[in-house]
Amino acid sequence: MKKKKKRSSAEPAQFFGIRTDLAVEAKELIPQDDGVRTEVTTEDDFTLTKVQIYTEDGAKKMGKPKGTYLTFESEKLKENDTACHNRMIESIAKELRELAKLKENASVLVVGLGNWNITPDALGPKVVHRILVTRHLKNTLPKELMDTVRPTAAISPGVMGITGIETGEIIKGIVEKIHPDLVIAVDALAARKFRRINTTIQMADTGVCPGSGVGNKRMSLDEETLGVPVIALGVPTVVDAATLVYDTMEKMLEEVSLTEEEQAEALRQDQQKRQAILEEMLTPYAQNMFVTPKEVDAVINRLADIIANAINIAVHPGITMEDINQYVF
Amino acid sequence: MKKKKKRSSAEPAQFFGIRTDLAVEAKELIPQDDGVRTEVTTEDDFTLTKVQIYTEDGAKKMGKPKGTYLTFESEKLKENDTACHNRMIESIAKELRELAKLKENASVLVVGLGNWNITPDALGPKVVHRILVTRHLKNTLPKELMDTVRPTAAISPGVMGITGIETGEIIKGIVEKIHPDLVIAVDALAARKFRRINTTIQMADTGVCPGSGVGNKRMSLDEETLGVPVIALGVPTVVDAATLVYDTMEKMLEEVSLTEEEQAEALRQDQQKRQAILEEMLTPYAQNMFVTPKEVDAVINRLADIIANAINIAVHPGITMEDINQYVF
Amino acid sequence: MKKKKKRSSAEPAQFFGIRTDLAVEAKELIPQDDGVRTEVTTEDDFTLTKVQIYTEDGAKKMGKPKGTYLTFESEKLKENDTACHNRMIESIAKELRELAKLKENASVLVVGLGNWNITPDALGPKVVHRILVTRHLKNTLPKELMDTVRPTAAISPGVMGITGIETGEIIKGIVEKIHPDLVIAVDALAARKFRRINTTIQMADTGVCPGSGVGNKRMSLDEETLGVPVIALGVPTVVDAATLVYDTMEKMLEEVSLTEEEQAEALRQDQQKRQAILEEMLTPYAQNMFVTPKEVDAVINRLADIIANAINIAVHPGITMEDINQYVF
Amino acid sequence: MKKKKKRSSAEPAQFFGIRTDLAVEAKELIPQDDGVRTEVTTEDDFTLTKVQIYTEDGAKKMGKPKGTYLTFESEKLKENDTACHNRMIESIAKELRELAKLKENASVLVVGLGNWNITPDALGPKVVHRILVTRHLKNTLPKELMDTVRPTAAISPGVMGITGIETGEIIKGIVEKIHPDLVIAVDALAARKFRRINTTIQMADTGVCPGSGVGNKRMSLDEETLGVPVIALGVPTVVDAATLVYDTMEKMLEEVSLTEEEQAEALRQDQQKRQAILEEMLTPYAQNMFVTPKEVDAVINRLADIIANAINIAVHPGITMEDINQYVF
Repeated sequence: MKKKKKRSSAEPAQFFGIRTDLAVEAKELIPQDDGVRTEVTTEDDFTLTKVQIYTEDGAKKMGKPKGTYLTFESEKLKENDTACHNRMIESIAKELRELAKLKENASVLVVGLGNWNITPDALGPKVVHRILVTRHLKNTLPKELMDTVRPTAAISPGVMGITGIETGEIIKGIVEKIHPDLVIAVDALAARKFRRINTTIQMADTGVCPGSGVGNKRMSLDEETLGVPVIALGVPTVVDAATLVYDTMEKMLEEVSLTEEEQAEALRQDQQKRQAILEEMLTPYAQNMFVTPKEVDAVINRLADIIANAINIAVHPGITMEDINQYVF
Repeated sequence: MKKKKKRSSAEPAQFFGIRTDLAVEAKELIPQDDGVRTEVTTEDDFTLTKVQIYTEDGAKKMGKPKGTYLTFESEKLKENDTACHNRMIESIAKELRELAKLKENASVLVVGLGNWNITPDALGPKVVHRILVTRHLKNTLPKELMDTVRPTAAISPGVMGITGIETGEIIKGIVEKIHPDLVIAVDALAARKFRRINTTIQMADTGVCPGSGVGNKRMSLDEETLGVPVIALGVPTVVDAATLVYDTMEKMLEEVSLTEEEQAEALRQDQQKRQAILEEMLTPYAQNMFVTPKEVDAVINRLADIIANAINIAVHPGITMEDINQYVF
Repeated sequence: MKKKKKRSSAEPAQFFGIRTDLAVEAKELIPQDDGVRTEVTTEDDFTLTKVQIYTEDGAKKMGKPKGTYLTFESEKLKENDTACHNRMIESIAKELRELAKLKENASVLVVGLGNWNITPDALGPKVVHRILVTRHLKNTLPKELMDTVRPTAAISPGVMGITGIETGEIIKGIVEKIHPDLVIAVDALAARKFRRINTTIQMADTGVCPGSGVGNKRMSLDEETLGVPVIALGVPTVVDAATLVYDTMEKMLEEVSLTEEEQAEALRQDQQKRQAILEEMLTPYAQNMFVTPKEVDAVINRLADIIANAINIAVHPGITMEDINQYVF
Repeated sequence: MKKKKKRSSAEPAQFFGIRTDLAVEAKELIPQDDGVRTEVTTEDDFTLTKVQIYTEDGAKKMGKPKGTYLTFESEKLKENDTACHNRMIESIAKELRELAKLKENASVLVVGLGNWNITPDALGPKVVHRILVTRHLKNTLPKELMDTVRPTAAISPGVMGITGIETGEIIKGIVEKIHPDLVIAVDALAARKFRRINTTIQMADTGVCPGSGVGNKRMSLDEETLGVPVIALGVPTVVDAATLVYDTMEKMLEEVSLTEEEQAEALRQDQQKRQAILEEMLTPYAQNMFVTPKEVDAVINRLADIIANAINIAVHPGITMEDINQYVF
């Protein structure tokens, strides 16, 4: 079994460029409690997993920065179950409010990362489209109404391939002009396992790397780069084709029943072999293929509703579950 | 090596529900010339493969109806190379004209199959959007202008999940009202190999099964069901995730070097094992996942331009390469 | 005052090609009760006007076929007031159910008229996108679930300029294949007055002329042409620019204070003058300009939600206000 | 005739909030040559008007800042005439290059103003979508290829109603991060006369006010606010409904044949009357209605192609008319 552990441990996967953006999945890959604390709450129809990485060592092992990672999981996320979605919206809004700890007059900038031309990467832009934007109304709304909303701005800058500009540069430029007290960044992520796709919402106070999901890693959006706290909200919407091939190869080696010696022999040789197979399988697209379910378009729209509603409730003091439908596009 | 051949023969693949819509790929899977004739022409930057299935036996072996299948292949199809695309447009238009053999006053109905909400399945609707539609102008255009165009109608009915109606029923209903002399059906297909994705255009005089690509098989659109000849044009835009997993497993068994006996042993057991692995890998999506390149959106738009231009030139006597840009939306 | 009445009576307006699709507006133009009965119900935040045209004479005077025309009116329709919209959805669903009188196993075809490329004309296609389509599930759903839904199909055929085919031909072809017991046709309309735009929903059991709103009059969709009852639902989303100019000219002649003789003099000459002015004002677009509010895109999406919800509740026995959000896009 | 001139002079129009964004139209409203020089070149199928405002007095009279305004006009702009469009692309690119006077290594930022949710206001975002963006490729492209392109970025920030942020703030923030040598801003404009709609392209070296067309005036984008030269490119895509009503009233007063005294009498009273009529005609939408032709969607796409092609040729040394189709989709 050690063999198995070694084989399915994070390192060889990373060697193959296999990546997960999900703290819960990273957690699955490493032994318990070295600098990482995990706490699971189970509700009727979803679970909330809180992973805290509190040492540099834990951060190294997880391949993720120190901080708090919340994961909301439900099979029903990808279905059309409004009742369950509403319960999750309330829970996400509550946890987001706690993570944000916004002062009374604090202002917020919501950033939608990702490429609106690629359906599974369009989550961020679709969320921004549904955010109740109020910053520009400051002096035009009657005071009693202004008290119900927080100055909130929202933008989807578009990916570097579209603008020619690092997303981080654009956001930093805007942050330096409008000085928000908090940035909330929403992005689509890549998962390791299909069962995570469109069933998991991750929230973290550690910022985000634009395009770490469908695109390529870029300058981070976090407190260090932007000078203000950054809360990241993400949903895994794809699995890299490379991940699927890699995991299939792993599975085969584990399942095809051979003697210990045969397995050992197979293993001794298989790393470069598997690299070669991986490359052959993905020719000519290398790392640029992803796997996505057919109904992705409708699911992304619902996920955008859920996340946008949760943000609208969390940031605007006067907005409740009763109101949200009033503000969704 | 017989083993290997057996393993990669079409049957077990079909057993696993692995499918290809491409005659050239089906051809790769069966021994030469039993009722199937293949002829390959190589141009500067694309190749044209003509597969003719002329016996019932060949049809059975290929798992495709008797008829003529033309395949235009070029790596440049998925790039932005207008010069190459224009040469392919001319070639496709020429072959389409020959296959169609339209009489002088014959009318055409272009049908765009597929789901416009799923980017890689939206090829058909995007082609229809670019077709020069003239049927309704019959009595309003000056005669000299009418002579340059053929009465042409075009429709994208939408998939059954959107309409609640078999696409075949909708098209048959319309055909019985407007009595076209030819139906040209355009659809997105599923390929077996990544290198086919967005690099191959298939044209056949045998009709088409809506949704055989990204969706599920349905009532055919062909001369038998519609009462008029049907020419199908398709491009493979996805690979089923199941296909990728299956082929990875095949590859592993071929590559992991074991003795003959060990391979034999592994093989004896592996069919149900592989089925189990396949199901586990795809959980919870079963057959409903597909693999697609990231830039699919831009590529589909270019492919739609190419196919629509080829159709516009083939059906309208007065339209040449010089004109096409005038008519593309 | 006779002068004024004559001027604002329907005839000269029609002489100028000024048109309204709204029975309530037509009603404003003719003297009371000759073959027309009107009944107004006032709710908290909307009014329901029932116009019944019960004689040929009334039909001629109204320029509309005999039948029942219901008009739901509220300023809040074009705002984002979910509470009011929900009350209107219930009322529209109730009246639609009464008008439809569907037998237990009766099936329905919902037709979305209009051009999805022209925002204010895209109402029909947007409604169809939100209809709960069930006809294709007949034999796949568990019986207890099937009892909650009625076999329902939905299609947006696209306007003649897009397909080259009369919308009526397409719908008739489909009706003859799937034999629905009722057709519900949804279309965008042209209003006479701005205050009607996006504030009025009209429902009638007399069928509809595709494109009578933003496009040009075409073959009717009604019981006579399709062989099944047709209920039309429409919302005025534009005013023709010609209407705006015509009404401005009318207004000027009424308001610019001149002596009786001067007005008489002005009037005697003004018909052809006004025609000339009208044409000059609209050069070079003639009848092809429309006036629309800036926020039309968001408003059309909300109106599509309202109408689609009302239809989903009216046709599916098991669907209630609690459920609708589950089924909207 | 003096009366007439007075009536149609700019002042009362502005009193009524009637506005034009076109220098050529403003020019029509004022007597010749006080601080304004006009030069007209006529090509086969388009005319180029160069208006130079060279004194403060002329600027005041024109209601526009000092600078150079080029206007390209052709009826064929709104038709599908590729040959004419290509000639205009070449001419626009040539004039743009002269106006820009870019140094060899100068970099460019193209800004698409306007609201992508409002078709006639989506010109800017659609142009940006077609710009060849190269700034991010600086160190990845082979040198010989880099020499053919200039570092170019492009962004459509979205209007203030969408982001909650002044467009000017966003652009200024980005400019301060990436330091382009030139900003090219593309926007949809409001015209005074229908014949200008989609037939006129205006280019000026004086910057632009976002939303001065379809939206409301905002902070300017010009050399003073951004610290780099700003060239504005715009196309009138709408006429305000208020303008149409106002001009109709003007026309009526000019055309209804009365005696001098009667006209004088009518005039003496008509200003507040006309204001009242204007408001009544537009109820309840006030200044928020616009008039647009039905085919606006297709026309905007073609105009976006023309302007994007002209910009791509003007800024990238290695790109010619032969290449443009390679980069536009």
